[in-house]
Amino acid sequence: MKRIVLVRHGQSQWNLENRFTGWTDVDLSPKGIEEAAKAGEELKKAGFTFSRAYTSYLKRAVKTLNGILDKMDLDWIPVDKTWRLNEKHYGMLQGLNKSETAEKYGDEQVHIWRRSYDIAPDAIAENDERNSAKDPRYAGVPDEYIPRTESLKDAIARVMPYWECEIFPRLKEEDNLLVVAHGNSLRGIVKHLKGISDEAINGLNLPTAIPYVFEFDDDLKLVKDYFLGDPETIKKLMEAVANQGKAK
Amino acid sequence: MKRIVLVRHGQSQWNLENRFTGWTDVDLSPKGIEEAAKAGEELKKAGFTFSRAYTSYLKRAVKTLNGILDKMDLDWIPVDKTWRLNEKHYGMLQGLNKSETAEKYGDEQVHIWRRSYDIAPDAIAENDERNSAKDPRYAGVPDEYIPRTESLKDAIARVMPYWECEIFPRLKEEDNLLVVAHGNSLRGIVKHLKGISDEAINGLNLPTAIPYVFEFDDDLKLVKDYFLGDPETIKKLMEAVANQGKAK
Repeated sequence: MKRIVLVRHGQSQWNLENRFTGWTDVDLSPKGIEEAAKAGEELKKAGFTFSRAYTSYLKRAVKTLNGILDKMDLDWIPVDKTWRLNEKHYGMLQGLNKSETAEKYGDEQVHIWRRSYDIAPDAIAENDERNSAKDPRYAGVPDEYIPRTESLKDAIARVMPYWECEIFPRLKEEDNLLVVAHGNSLRGIVKHLKGISDEAINGLNLPTAIPYVFEFDDDLKLVKDYFLGDPETIKKLMEAVANQGKAK
Repeated sequence: MKRIVLVRHGQSQWNLENRFTGWTDVDLSPKGIEEAAKAGEELKKAGFTFSRAYTSYLKRAVKTLNGILDKMDLDWIPVDKTWRLNEKHYGMLQGLNKSETAEKYGDEQVHIWRRSYDIAPDAIAENDERNSAKDPRYAGVPDEYIPRTESLKDAIARVMPYWECEIFPRLKEEDNLLVVAHGNSLRGIVKHLKGISDEAINGLNLPTAIPYVFEFDDDLKLVKDYFLGDPETIKKLMEAVANQGKAK
């Protein structure tokens, strides 16, 4: 049996402040650090191990991964980091508070920006200090690949080449892979693996730091998928994520 | 100008308990975690940045590196981990308290084991549970490469091919590299870079978590080397390391 485990990063400072984060490199909150440790303990207790891990260029994902690996005594395994696993780029919304944005534009518009499949927020201006094209960490990425905003469709189109070329084929050689990334980059992978429609993918709200296990047979056909943990707890966590964009 | 910065990991639990560690995968102490954060802050304050980092398979080094990168907002850079940067293998001494060993065998014998260039402690037995050949993390390493004990000479002979093939040539393409490893694996690199004799290398006591900066010109000739930090503090730290093997 072969397995890929997906984990959304733990709570970040801006999840806590309910702000649109996107490609902003926000740190984990103390709760997020605890969530990462707990995910590592659960995986270890359930007998999981990994030969390789993947994560994004954003520290909330990297640090969640580090926390998980440490609890599993797997600090030593190779980790591949890629901008392609970054969160969806939120364009001009990056940094704004979700409740304030909802009050200003209405719940409906915010819901469209957060959850529509192919509508992107307005793009960040070239001279905006938030423009990632100016960030040295993306110096190795062709400028036309660096988003100034993204719809979920755009984000998925950016994630999937990495999945197709790097992560999934690696399962031929290695049996247990870990991917720690973001709500929307992981939506792309789950959409692909489970054949979820463009319309329905909006409804998938991944809870933070709960391992989502995908099992494959030797032909790499998906056999089974499940969250690791108590079903009631997971349901509540998923509902909490869905409610984040509502005005308070 | 091109730079390679060497950092010895922060204080580990067994540094604290004064036990021979070697390839045992001992965690950082709380002080070690603080030391790593401080090293990262110092490097950032001094204007350093890195495009790539190297570390060993041992968590005290990996976690020191993670702590440094986090303070520098460099969580995202590629990290290459290798067993070749592991600490010197201490054979049958691994796990023993240094003061107790000194009382039993005498300061002189312990000093020879710790500091002689080509005398290794007795080898760990094949069926000893401490034998790293049984550890899955070394499954990808040819059995004959996995030490059962090492002299400093042996450890350096194991480190240097990685330095020659991976780290040093990388300076042709990248200007700033970080290596976080162990007292003895770093001794090998420093010995090579500074042309230190077999006899004199014993006297080099690297302080924990103090960045040791090596500057090279475009032809990769060593131009300058220095520790980053207050000279008096560094002198005291180096003396403290030298005194660790003495009976109390």
